[in-house]
Amino acid sequence: MAPGITAEKKTEDEQSSKDNLIHLSNPHLEKMKDDILYHFALGTGTHDFPALFGDVKFVCVGGSPSRMKAFITYIAEELGLGSVGADYPNICAGTDRYAMYKVGPVLSVSHGMGIPSIAIMLHELIKLLYHSKCSNVTIIRIGTSGGIGLEPGSVVITSQSVDATFKPQFEQVILGKTVIRSTNLDDQLAKELMQCSKEINEFNTVIGNTMCTLDFYEGQARLDGAICLYAEEEKLQYLKAAYDAGVRNIEMESSVFAAICNLSGVRAAVVCVTLLNRLEGDQISSSHDVLVEYQQRPQKLVGHFIKKCLGKV
Amino acid sequence: MAPGITAEKKTEDEQSSKDNLIHLSNPHLEKMKDDILYHFALGTGTHDFPALFGDVKFVCVGGSPSRMKAFITYIAEELGLGSVGADYPNICAGTDRYAMYKVGPVLSVSHGMGIPSIAIMLHELIKLLYHSKCSNVTIIRIGTSGGIGLEPGSVVITSQSVDATFKPQFEQVILGKTVIRSTNLDDQLAKELMQCSKEINEFNTVIGNTMCTLDFYEGQARLDGAICLYAEEEKLQYLKAAYDAGVRNIEMESSVFAAICNLSGVRAAVVCVTLLNRLEGDQISSSHDVLVEYQQRPQKLVGHFIKKCLGKV
Repeated sequence: MAPGITAEKKTEDEQSSKDNLIHLSNPHLEKMKDDILYHFALGTGTHDFPALFGDVKFVCVGGSPSRMKAFITYIAEELGLGSVGADYPNICAGTDRYAMYKVGPVLSVSHGMGIPSIAIMLHELIKLLYHSKCSNVTIIRIGTSGGIGLEPGSVVITSQSVDATFKPQFEQVILGKTVIRSTNLDDQLAKELMQCSKEINEFNTVIGNTMCTLDFYEGQARLDGAICLYAEEEKLQYLKAAYDAGVRNIEMESSVFAAICNLSGVRAAVVCVTLLNRLEGDQISSSHDVLVEYQQRPQKLVGHFIKKCLGKV
Repeated sequence: MAPGITAEKKTEDEQSSKDNLIHLSNPHLEKMKDDILYHFALGTGTHDFPALFGDVKFVCVGGSPSRMKAFITYIAEELGLGSVGADYPNICAGTDRYAMYKVGPVLSVSHGMGIPSIAIMLHELIKLLYHSKCSNVTIIRIGTSGGIGLEPGSVVITSQSVDATFKPQFEQVILGKTVIRSTNLDDQLAKELMQCSKEINEFNTVIGNTMCTLDFYEGQARLDGAICLYAEEEKLQYLKAAYDAGVRNIEMESSVFAAICNLSGVRAAVVCVTLLNRLEGDQISSSHDVLVEYQQRPQKLVGHFIKKCLGKV
């Protein structure tokens, strides 16, 4: 039951411990009359958030807008909530920064590429869920990545998100000073997702560390960017050191995703497919059809998880 | 004249000094048979780059795909190359990561939000220009930003891009080690753009430092994110210190933009409109129409510059 529709008024702490409400680590927001979520083109003064989003229990996020539209169509069918050929309107149609789709308790949101892009989206998403009085929300990133030592098409459920020096932390500059935040993810949720992959039994899935970098080319030791001032041996040495530190894939959003979800008291997981094995190359050269099928794997896994949570398996 | 169509073969150094070719700081690329620009959905094995892009002299980049489409329509009309109601196809239609449009010598490319997102685009753009044998290219970022101590709608031409501690540098982690790169931009180009603004005489324009941050909320001292653990006085102190360091606006892409253009030997500038004065608030609350008009200002300024370069003013 969403707290917005409870009959009796409870204190926030009582409610929070029972219902797992969103935790807002910002005392300033209470003083604001309206809140404009600029990059969503939504605002509390213009939209009825509890009515629009109050029933959301699962938020799936991913880089590409078209992939997140494909996911909402897929999950609608899986949950028996969609009709054949149904079109799902983009809730953020007033902007081209992000795309957002909803069906039943599932929200699907794109976040673009990189830590800053997903961070903007997450700040506004957490506020959206808070203003909507949502409770017991699970957020899962379903994305693509480069694998290390895995067959392409393998799925990695992130155990820890580590930085480019393999530390499980997210470093951020606030008011000119460096702040370190935890990148812990929910162990139990990772295990539940692993169990779902076993039940589907369609592709290789592992739980492992995910390295989150600020750059796709030099930051991930690629040899094929416009700039590369190191040798192939140095690249391989770095990737092997990453493997030895438990890293099984590399992407560009998991650290800040874990940090913000942690601070907001939201259960979170990262499920990414690997498009190539970085020990064997840098270019993503599989055919379009193969890549499309790979990208459906995290969707299938998380789709199964949501169905299971809702007792529909 | 593009080097690809010169009759006589020159050494790269001779040619480079005369024609200002793109400089690729990556010896590995020569060994590659084909180069797949994955996030553009273009490749040297599937596309004739010199034929498609060899005549490009101006590249304008900005965050939003729809704004970059609006720019190509605008510049086509300004240069007398467009027909009324003409539609410009997205050259990167095979992906939704970036959008790209071309008319005559002008390429218009979106880059999403944040340093990692624009960095991926720039690596692939620099390689595209190199493979296309382009020469004498100018790249200008036309974007939006938060102003400091300026009337909203003012345009800032970046003198230096500084980080969140006001240093004119871009810090990057490569193979786990921190590398510092210069964020110098072309002084002469900034002056030429300032002169263009004087000739148009429609809006306030200044040359000033631009602070480039990895985050929109806490990283820019906003009070309205999902997380904010500092007081309003600390915020104002930080923004005033930025102003005293010559910062006139804050955005999220200029540092890596300057660093990559520097290393590639490309003349580059950053021209951003300010959507609000951060000393007076955090929320972007101007009406849609006002914001749309503000966003046209960098386009007008750079449009005038391109016309002038081509002798069409």
